[in-house]
Amino acid sequence: MTPARSNLRIDSGRLWNAIHETAKFGGTPKGGVRRLTLGPEDKQVRDWFRAACEAAGCEVRVDGLGTMFAIRKGRDMSKAPVGLGSHLDTQPTGGKFDGILGTLAALEVVRTLNDADIETDAPLCIANWTNEEGSRFAPAMMASAAYAGDFTTENILGRLDAEGISVAQALDTIGYRGVDPVGQQKFSAFVELHIEQGPLLEAEGKTIGVVDRGQGIMWYDGRIAGFASHAGTTPMPLRRDALAAFSELVLAIEKIVKDHGPHAVGTVGEIIVENPSRNVIPGDLVFTTDIRSPDGKTLDALHEAVSAAAADIGKRRKVAITLEQVWRKEPTVFNTTLVDAVATATETLGYSNRRITSGAGHDACNLATVVPSAMIFVPCKDGISHNELEDATQADCAAGANVLLHTALSLAGIAD
Amino acid sequence: MTPARSNLRIDSGRLWNAIHETAKFGGTPKGGVRRLTLGPEDKQVRDWFRAACEAAGCEVRVDGLGTMFAIRKGRDMSKAPVGLGSHLDTQPTGGKFDGILGTLAALEVVRTLNDADIETDAPLCIANWTNEEGSRFAPAMMASAAYAGDFTTENILGRLDAEGISVAQALDTIGYRGVDPVGQQKFSAFVELHIEQGPLLEAEGKTIGVVDRGQGIMWYDGRIAGFASHAGTTPMPLRRDALAAFSELVLAIEKIVKDHGPHAVGTVGEIIVENPSRNVIPGDLVFTTDIRSPDGKTLDALHEAVSAAAADIGKRRKVAITLEQVWRKEPTVFNTTLVDAVATATETLGYSNRRITSGAGHDACNLATVVPSAMIFVPCKDGISHNELEDATQADCAAGANVLLHTALSLAGIAD
Repeated sequence: MTPARSNLRIDSGRLWNAIHETAKFGGTPKGGVRRLTLGPEDKQVRDWFRAACEAAGCEVRVDGLGTMFAIRKGRDMSKAPVGLGSHLDTQPTGGKFDGILGTLAALEVVRTLNDADIETDAPLCIANWTNEEGSRFAPAMMASAAYAGDFTTENILGRLDAEGISVAQALDTIGYRGVDPVGQQKFSAFVELHIEQGPLLEAEGKTIGVVDRGQGIMWYDGRIAGFASHAGTTPMPLRRDALAAFSELVLAIEKIVKDHGPHAVGTVGEIIVENPSRNVIPGDLVFTTDIRSPDGKTLDALHEAVSAAAADIGKRRKVAITLEQVWRKEPTVFNTTLVDAVATATETLGYSNRRITSGAGHDACNLATVVPSAMIFVPCKDGISHNELEDATQADCAAGANVLLHTALSLAGIAD
Repeated sequence: MTPARSNLRIDSGRLWNAIHETAKFGGTPKGGVRRLTLGPEDKQVRDWFRAACEAAGCEVRVDGLGTMFAIRKGRDMSKAPVGLGSHLDTQPTGGKFDGILGTLAALEVVRTLNDADIETDAPLCIANWTNEEGSRFAPAMMASAAYAGDFTTENILGRLDAEGISVAQALDTIGYRGVDPVGQQKFSAFVELHIEQGPLLEAEGKTIGVVDRGQGIMWYDGRIAGFASHAGTTPMPLRRDALAAFSELVLAIEKIVKDHGPHAVGTVGEIIVENPSRNVIPGDLVFTTDIRSPDGKTLDALHEAVSAAAADIGKRRKVAITLEQVWRKEPTVFNTTLVDAVATATETLGYSNRRITSGAGHDACNLATVVPSAMIFVPCKDGISHNELEDATQADCAAGANVLLHTALSLAGIAD
């Protein structure tokens, strides 16, 4: 970096405006965003993003799972581009920063380079990955997982949402099933900026998290089959109450992950009683569970303990509990060279920082298995995300984008 | 009763056929019935019932809440009729006997009297009460409660189902909002035949339950407000998980009712997590609770204990738990004269029997506060009801109908 280039900074106000402009697509009364993947609001933000990237001189390509790639040419087009980006979909009641910051900061990097008339040696590529959130279609991060070869494209296209709509149908409905084969777009490296979604940076007063690890994740689909009977006439000892068994299991999972603490977490996020009625003992129900740890052996131990608890509760209460592991993502160790590049850019820019483990899953965690990858975290208010109250400061967002800019420059090189 | 009349018996095969013929309206693949009150299947069975009653010479009237009254004339029309009947609606996955037996047995009583050319002194009136089950609109047994003066007609007409449809709209949609004011149809007595919905008669090998009491019932609407946040990044100690708090409450209710056993029961039948997602800690949820005891003071104690448990859990877990009692039905003590009339008819017919407390609520429990009332129970298989597996034998159904017939004759008197 020449001194002139080391003074280069992104336009904080322009980035902030872009975040708030896109927050209108699916904006909620409480200031959050409801933009489920491949729904009408996702189409709106995709159209906006495509237009913005093209206006910034990028060529936008779309792959067979709807992931968007906006390429800014470099001097040497024989080189694979440096990938920057994240995702623009949100949780059902999500915030305006999660994923969006990383995608729009990558756009801001391109705009900043355009303004400074800087050509990089390798090209850059801004990515907007389809369905990072996983709240409409499972699993989360499915497009980057398919990119990394964990699933075939056909497998993902056939996944159904709660209304029985497939990924393929949803892509066709909004016109975002692209022609490029999944995985065709190569990268020399991938860097994702994201809000921390946890409390550590804020608590320690640090501006940048240099992410060196990502938690492993296990997802389960559960089902409990008890026996539906009359709430008034069935004596307590004769009941086979699916919901009482479920309640025991929720508390057992909570205790098990605490016993494997402090870094393990476990959550039962969804429960649906089938044919519920106020005066019928619940007979059948389904639920989902999410269990995480940054350590693979701890994941094994958690799986064993939770499975044993389910078996024990089922036996005692004479209900059938099935707990199927539908996904396991091993803990991520990010590429040392890239992590060091992020750390160097952060230090050069003078931001306070710490190494950090990602508690959440991210597309960069999937990509890390096939592309040298790294992540940059900035603080978010009270560690809250996946919530309409999710918040981050303009200064922190700008700091993260500046680290992204200088990491990208160091990885792509400058042409002249 | 003259000897000839004491030999009178209902037509067991005709009653059995009627039960199975109406089971087609909302019949499920597993042999149960899904006939939610005031839905299209309820209209079908109501139309069938009206036609059958008219064919049996009755005049059918409908009150402002859709309750149907089919009057068989007596010699002395200045006398209030003896009411017989129950309800034709079912739970979402209910059986073909609950309520239906009592309504169709009353029809069978009229048909039997017609065949034998017997005129009663007082008229008879077959009732089909609207929304006994309470699974579409709350509370259960709302039409008989309004009849008894517990609610105004306007209040009940405004009640909404889960889709926001009012009772008034639902009545108008199926054409069963009648012109008669609720309560206009008077009775000198009311007798309801029903399956036991519990295990006692079957366990003791008794054919008839002479019901002398009914359990008191308390219904609650609950809400828990915790805080929705990211399942991967929120450390366990910082969580305000509404579903974990709910799970504790479910188990607390279970323990409390057991501590007040053996006759107290408590059930959490419904739980809905708002905006659920697999990787979001549940922030808000709603649920319902049903608690019963045959003793009023025990109801008071249960209310206190459950309320205290909810407050304790809410405080410890930093979530707001509200538990609103939306209904309390005091325990029922049926009219001694009518209970004795049922017992006498049962003994005269030679059926094994026992006195019994109703664990379930019934329209007769509501009517008991304004009309001398009684109930007749027959066994059901394994004590199961509110389930597609609900079953009863043809012989037991016929026995119950014969007790209903002779109780009605003793109450209405014979004209000649």
